[in-house]
This record gives sequence, structure tokens and C-alpha cells, in this order.
Amino acid sequence: MRKIGILGGGQLGRMMLQQAVNYPVETWVMENDELCPSANLCHRFVKGDIRDRDAVIAFGRQVDALTIEIENVSLEALQVLESEGIRVFPNTKALGIIKNKILQKEYYRDHNIPTSDFRILRDRKDLEMLAGELPAVQKLATGGYDGRGVTILRRAEDIPGGFDAPSVLEKLVDIERELAIIVAIDEKGEQAVFSPVEMVFDPALNLLDYQLCPPDLPRETLWKAEAVAQSVARNLGSPGLFAVELFVDRNGEVLVNETAPRVHNSGHHSIEGNFCSQFDMLLRIVLGYPLGDADVILPSAMINLVGADGYEGEPVYEGLGEVMAMERTFVHIYGKRETRPGRKMGHVTVVANDRHELIHRAERIRETLKVKGTIKR
Amino acid sequence: MRKIGILGGGQLGRMMLQQAVNYPVETWVMENDELCPSANLCHRFVKGDIRDRDAVIAFGRQVDALTIEIENVSLEALQVLESEGIRVFPNTKALGIIKNKILQKEYYRDHNIPTSDFRILRDRKDLEMLAGELPAVQKLATGGYDGRGVTILRRAEDIPGGFDAPSVLEKLVDIERELAIIVAIDEKGEQAVFSPVEMVFDPALNLLDYQLCPPDLPRETLWKAEAVAQSVARNLGSPGLFAVELFVDRNGEVLVNETAPRVHNSGHHSIEGNFCSQFDMLLRIVLGYPLGDADVILPSAMINLVGADGYEGEPVYEGLGEVMAMERTFVHIYGKRETRPGRKMGHVTVVANDRHELIHRAERIRETLKVKGTIKR
Repeated sequence: MRKIGILGGGQLGRMMLQQAVNYPVETWVMENDELCPSANLCHRFVKGDIRDRDAVIAFGRQVDALTIEIENVSLEALQVLESEGIRVFPNTKALGIIKNKILQKEYYRDHNIPTSDFRILRDRKDLEMLAGELPAVQKLATGGYDGRGVTILRRAEDIPGGFDAPSVLEKLVDIERELAIIVAIDEKGEQAVFSPVEMVFDPALNLLDYQLCPPDLPRETLWKAEAVAQSVARNLGSPGLFAVELFVDRNGEVLVNETAPRVHNSGHHSIEGNFCSQFDMLLRIVLGYPLGDADVILPSAMINLVGADGYEGEPVYEGLGEVMAMERTFVHIYGKRETRPGRKMGHVTVVANDRHELIHRAERIRETLKVKGTIKR
Repeated sequence: MRKIGILGGGQLGRMMLQQAVNYPVETWVMENDELCPSANLCHRFVKGDIRDRDAVIAFGRQVDALTIEIENVSLEALQVLESEGIRVFPNTKALGIIKNKILQKEYYRDHNIPTSDFRILRDRKDLEMLAGELPAVQKLATGGYDGRGVTILRRAEDIPGGFDAPSVLEKLVDIERELAIIVAIDEKGEQAVFSPVEMVFDPALNLLDYQLCPPDLPRETLWKAEAVAQSVARNLGSPGLFAVELFVDRNGEVLVNETAPRVHNSGHHSIEGNFCSQFDMLLRIVLGYPLGDADVILPSAMINLVGADGYEGEPVYEGLGEVMAMERTFVHIYGKRETRPGRKMGHVTVVANDRHELIHRAERIRETLKVKGTIKR
């Protein structure tokens, strides 16, 4: 039986392992936390730091192919493994570009992929010299993750709060809509493209409220977005699965925001919404099977369940029974042992033919299901 | 986190665990074979004989609720556990009836559930006295499983090959079609009924070729079958999931063949064909959640993958890549370490709106995908 290794043991790995149950494969997971969401769903769990070069090399040598569920892994280790013939998805060239926000932005520019204007900063001194270009977004070149390493600088007075490290300063986009498109590429270069999803944000808190698939946008805009996403993935020259996050500005222009070279939060709806999910698609690529059928079964909305403010400790899923009673509704709880405010604890997908019904039900689910905890702060 | 235990670690348990990934639950499995399909997908694997009274009691005392993936478990142990307040699905009253083919037949008769005429036999002597009633099917009261414990006696000369043990002798039904219907009942007595499936047999070999959902039968026949299946499940007075196998005879009469008080081969298509699968439905019942939405998403065909004749050893899935390339096709390989002729090694579900397309594709899959093995006999 072929052996595949996943670096990282969070919910993305968990859902990949859930799909891997269908195939003849031995699954290995490396992660520091023995109680992580993936620990009990693989054939072999290896406790270890995925940023530790030697640990990752030792892990990777025991499998036939490796993939990641987070970019923050030892690139050097993967380069060694790749040179030894272990198949790595995405390859280290693509991962190296995407892991570093400076290289990622330069990659878009060098391949004529539309993206917001940007400047490269070595440190805060560089930032101070560009005070005239604010408002802008500053992003750390490396180490940013899940909202960390990104700051909005509106005016010169914000500069002391900016990062004093290699980073990019991106012009603020006048955002009309936010989309994400997942593109899969196998080792033969064949592509499969998932229908775009639209991120719907809470206008007050700027929090992702839910995602809708497909978006309510003109066909021409969606075609443009798909072409851009395919170009991002294709030019990386790597097999794997790529989640391309895009802005549509007030003029209908499409700009790439960021790319993740792996399964992604924006593809969770595909488990029930598409014939082949993002997890299945990546597994097929890693295992050398033909690409799957990314067609949409039914329009869907996906609601993230995050830890409620004021709660920690063992999670308590308030309203879960009510949501489980809703028709065409699919609950995914990630099995995390502790909740924290804002922590991703699960998600819910609903399918329906009618967009208004989807929105109505997504909002009802968001109001009904709360992840509280045994400790109240 | 609630703890549930599954007695048995085969493919049915495996697919239940695959669904349990979505819920906050700690999963325990008891099974003798440490390399069984469920061993690496649960929180706790306990090696042990599920027919061993003391072992099952010790296992069951560590969980909040128990279910089974095979009837051949220690009923006595479950009775002890039930008396101690452990929730058991199905309850031991229902399991006791179904485990014994004599009690099962008497149950149908006592509840006016249509079933073939039968005689109860203590031994071969009883059988000899009923030579005039052949042809008939003789079924062992206990210990039969997966085709074992059942024999067709066509004429008096076959009697020496019959069973010399408590058994039932059933009148042969002039079968026009074979159906299966899954009925789920929660602890409040609420019911959910899955659409009937039709078993399509190879006329030469009498092997199940594939299943179709929904069947191509008059509405009235399907309604009758659903009413009969619901009556079987309801009168058992137990929460759980019940797969009722039915015959439709040449006169359009519906007769119950057998009932399984658990997830069943005839419900595999529900993973992709229905909004809530049979595995999800049983989990919801065991966890005390509301019943799910059993509605059909798309018509489906399900093809069992069994070990090809002449092969043993490590399985080799010939034609798997070809089948993986087919659209709207879902492969489930059970991860068994060894193949044997006729052993259930996996299944494939296809969905399509058109019945002829389903049949065409089911036949193509059956011809394309073969489970061979590393040892040729």
C-alpha cells in the first residue's frame, strides 16, 4: 500500500484523512500536538515539529509522497526529500514562492497576473520613507498566518505600529467582492477548476460571515477570475491544489490577493457541494489517480464555526441539535480539545437551489450555533 | 466528549467512523483482528472477541452507548450492559429476535407482517418429515452469516445435505424483484425511511450485480414495501437502523425476507445518493441528535467489489485508475489487508438522472474494476 505523509494535523489534514478512508493508502501525519484533530485518523502519527528540518526529513523518508496542510513547514527539509525522489505536493519551488509574501507578489508581477500595486520593504525605515503612499496594507514576508503578520496602515501616525522586518506594502484595493477559486493540477499538467465562491463579510466587524457558491456576479467577471486563478496555478509549475483568493474592485477588475498551495477554508463546501471535494481532488493528485469531477451538485453556503468571545476550555456546541435538525445541512466539528475566541472549531454547509434561501439559512445557522467553552472569562 | 463503542471492525464500522469524524464524539472499536478496516480510524481500539461475554461487558462499561456492525455478538453481555444503563442500539429485545431466524420468522407472523410460509425444525428428523414441502429454503436459527447457514433444498434427495440443527424451512418465493428498505427510528420513536433500492442479480450466477435506487416498480408496490418495512422496524420497539430485505413476487405481493438491525450493504449508495447517509443516520440516533434528511439527491447504482476467483494475498485493484476517471463515480476501498474469492473489498457508487445510464455505467464498472491479489491459485 502506498504511504502518504501530511505535515500538520489540523482540520485540513483531518478532512483529507476522512476522504483517504476511501482509497488503498497508508496515511502518516506529523504534528507536535498529540491531541490534534488528525491524530486518531491516520495509520501512523509522528509527534514532531514540522518546522524542524531534521525531523521532517526523517518523517518524509518513510513515505512515498508528502503534502502539507499549512505553509509554515521546513522548506529546506522538503528540498532534501524532493532531491531524494520523494514526491512533494506542492513542489518546493512553488512552496518557496508562496511562503514568502515578497516572492509571491513578485511572482504575480513577473507573470502579468493582476494584483494590487506594492512596494518591497526591508524594515521600518523603508516604511517611513513611503508614508506618502498610505493608506496601505503591510504584510510580513514570512511567518504570517491566519490574520497574523498583516496590518492596515491608514496614515503616517500608524507607522510605529507597522512591522520592522522584510515585508510588502500593498496599495489598498477598493473591494467590491472577495472570491476564492481552487485550481487543481496533476502531475501530467491536467487541470480541474472549482466554481468560484464568494466570501460574505460582516460589514461591522469585517469577519467572514459565510461563503456562497456560486457567487452572484456577471458571468464575464467570473470567467476573468477563473482565467486569472488558472494562470496563477499553471505558472507555478507544480502539481497540487491551489486556492487563489481574489478581489473584485469597484470597476469590476479582478486582482489576486493571495494564494494558498493546499486545501483551504474556501473549499470546505465542496465536500457536499461538488461531486469531487477539494480533499478528494488533492488526494487523487498525490496518489497519481485521475482528477475528479469538480462539477457543482447544488449551490451551497458554508459557515465557519469559531470559538465565541469570552470562552475557553473544552468546547460546548450550543444549538448543535437545532442545526442538526435542519434539512440539507451538514455539520463538521473538528474535534479540537479546547476552544479559544476566534479559533476555527468546525463548519456547516447548507445546499439549496435558491440563493436567497441559502443566505437566509446561513444567517440562521450563524445565529443558532455557538461554540462556547467550559471556562468563562 | 461522549463515547460510543462499535462491536466489530469491518467495513460497516469503518464507514460509520468516517462519518463520525464530523461530530464531537470519542469512538471505540472492539474486534479481534488488529489490522481490520476500522482499527486506525477510532480513538480507542480494543482487541477482543465480540462473542465473548466478559470481554464485551468490560468494553461496553467504558462507553456511553454501543452499536453493532454484525449480529454475531454476545447478546448476554449487551443485556447486562443495558441493565446497567448503557444505551444499546438496537436494544437487546430487537437484537434477540433478529439474531435467531426462528424468532425472526415468528415475529413477522405474530405482527401480521407478510413473509413466506415457514416451518420450524428442531433437527434433520423434522426436516425428513417435511420432504413433501420441498422445494424450500432451510436457514439455521443462529450462526448464519453472509450466505452461510442457508441452503436450498429442491427435492427429497437434498435432505442429507440439509442442516441437522434448529432452523426454519421457508417456502420458496417466486421472486420477481428483490428490494431493501432502510428505516431509522430514534429514541423518541421518530422515523426516517430511505427510498427503496432494487437488487439486480446476475441471472446465471445468482450473484448481486449491483443495486439501483430508486427501483423501476409501480408506485403502489413501493408504497406497500415501505409500509411493510416501517411496520417491521416499528414493532421491534427499538431505536436504531433497520435494513429490511423484501421480495416482490410474480403477483406483485411484497414479502419480508430478512431484517438486519444495523447499517447494511444495501445502504452504501446513501453516502452520495442521499442528503443523510445510513451511517450518519445511525450516528445521529446513537448520539441523540435529530434524525437526518434521508431524501435522495440523485438516483444511484452501487456495485460491490468482491475478491476475484483465483486470487488471495494483498489486494491488487486492477482498473481502479480507469474507474476513478469516470464522472459522478465514487470509489470506496475498505482497506482490507488480504483478498479472498468473494470477499467484500470495496464498493463503487455512481449517480445519474437516467436509469439506463446508471445500468450502463454499473455494468461498465463491474467489467473494468477487478480485485485480484498477489497470490494466484
